[in-house]
Amino acid sequence: MPDVHIAEVGPRDGLQNLAHEFSVAERIDLINRLLGAGPALVEAVSFVNERRVPRMAGAEQILREIERPGDVTIAGLVLNGRGVHRALECDLDEIRFAVSATDAFNIRNVNATVQATVAEFTAAVAPSRASGKKLTAVVAVAFGCPFAGPVPAAAVLAVAAQLVDAGADELILADTIGCAVPTQIRSLISALRENWPELPLGLHLHNTRNTGYLNAIVGVEAGATTLDASVGGLGGCPFAPNATGNIATEDLAYILRNMGVSTGVDLESLIGTSEWLGSVIPQEISGQVARAGLFPEIASHDPAQRA
Amino acid sequence: MPDVHIAEVGPRDGLQNLAHEFSVAERIDLINRLLGAGPALVEAVSFVNERRVPRMAGAEQILREIERPGDVTIAGLVLNGRGVHRALECDLDEIRFAVSATDAFNIRNVNATVQATVAEFTAAVAPSRASGKKLTAVVAVAFGCPFAGPVPAAAVLAVAAQLVDAGADELILADTIGCAVPTQIRSLISALRENWPELPLGLHLHNTRNTGYLNAIVGVEAGATTLDASVGGLGGCPFAPNATGNIATEDLAYILRNMGVSTGVDLESLIGTSEWLGSVIPQEISGQVARAGLFPEIASHDPAQRA
Repeated sequence: MPDVHIAEVGPRDGLQNLAHEFSVAERIDLINRLLGAGPALVEAVSFVNERRVPRMAGAEQILREIERPGDVTIAGLVLNGRGVHRALECDLDEIRFAVSATDAFNIRNVNATVQATVAEFTAAVAPSRASGKKLTAVVAVAFGCPFAGPVPAAAVLAVAAQLVDAGADELILADTIGCAVPTQIRSLISALRENWPELPLGLHLHNTRNTGYLNAIVGVEAGATTLDASVGGLGGCPFAPNATGNIATEDLAYILRNMGVSTGVDLESLIGTSEWLGSVIPQEISGQVARAGLFPEIASHDPAQRA
Repeated sequence: MPDVHIAEVGPRDGLQNLAHEFSVAERIDLINRLLGAGPALVEAVSFVNERRVPRMAGAEQILREIERPGDVTIAGLVLNGRGVHRALECDLDEIRFAVSATDAFNIRNVNATVQATVAEFTAAVAPSRASGKKLTAVVAVAFGCPFAGPVPAAAVLAVAAQLVDAGADELILADTIGCAVPTQIRSLISALRENWPELPLGLHLHNTRNTGYLNAIVGVEAGATTLDASVGGLGGCPFAPNATGNIATEDLAYILRNMGVSTGVDLESLIGTSEWLGSVIPQEISGQVARAGLFPEIASHDPAQRA
């Protein structure tokens, strides 16, 4: 099995809906702690309308003030051309551009059809390349849509083809509502792998129905090399009981470590950040390894964990 | 992939450590609700020392008073020869006999070495056959022991060989502390499948570190045909934060349904029982499908769900 790149999305996806409102200073603190654990990538900010999503305000300040180690990719999420414009002005390595697989979701999310957003993505390719930034396409609701219901694989592949042909450097499929099962994951990842053998593929998974860790490992075995995860399994809305968080970074890292898959993350550091978060936010974190403990435990100076 | 037999263990494993103490009448009510959902098996009772585990008292009365449909196997758990003797006197179809893979756990659990318990299992084979009852061997702590640490696969296979050679009709590996990862599941299930191509194999999984659903599907794809699960993901001790419940039957059934695997269970009925449990016990249930809802939802008269 290939090495896996863990993309830590807690500072972005995790904080949007929490009961506790993080200040910019707390978000910088969180990002610095996460950078210290050594994931491949930290999705640090979101360039969305600050009036619509006030919790994501201050992206520019955050990117100026975080302590950047050289070896972790710093990414920001965008949903449209305005977001791309802001991201291009910032010191970051990767722009992650989300496009929904269904009009129903895309219109609710950004007030635009899928095709209108695909056009904005296409327009972002040249300036991203000119500025030396990687441009990743994220296909939201790729396995099911809360408004349109089941999403045919053909529809996802059609949008994916447009984004890849336009110039996406990586493609990530998002199970936004946490409904996917392994047969769907394998079918889509295999089809993408067949169409574009060299294209890096990733998965963004929510654990809403206890399928997230299952789909993560199935996806890696089918060819995905990037897995989004959020420290503590952060995310979900306290006012919407059927929205829950991403898979927890530390639980994912535990599974991969015990399977012998290298990720480069420092599990003890992640668990420390998860425990710190548990002391900051009012609700219980959904990650379970921090509570249950590692098995087997890490020896005090286990070089494999620092590799 | 083969059809999967779901073994509902909530009335036994689920109730032992709950803050809410179920009366015998409530346990009968729970079992009757679960029988109505049509799993392959319900592990209804445990023939343990009633002074050591008062919550499991009354096995005989429960087996007399439940409403038994003809097509669900009724099983009881035993840990020693005294349990076998009680079980043989009862109207049940299957005796599930647990033997630990490590002396450290077996001594803590039943005050006997593994070999002493293997001898009691061996002695149970002839009388079980004579009474027409299936005898299943459950190997506890097969993937890790809280007292002995990592458990070598060879040790598990050695105990398994003794139990199968003695006459076990089925073999179930239990991840008692919820530490296993897919590489371990595949390695053990494949070895067992190779040694005994016709022997029914099962897995009993706890979701303590978010690995349970992952290991369930990996196990089925490797050759396991029985999966233990507990409605609502019941189990775990409110006084020991690192002990958590089994995988939730309804969440497992959701995954299998959406993968096209038949189990025969009525998902809506299971979700109804899970919701009822949520109203009876003080803590939140760990099963997530009852909260999030099915995706896609079941049409009012979906014959596939009643098959």
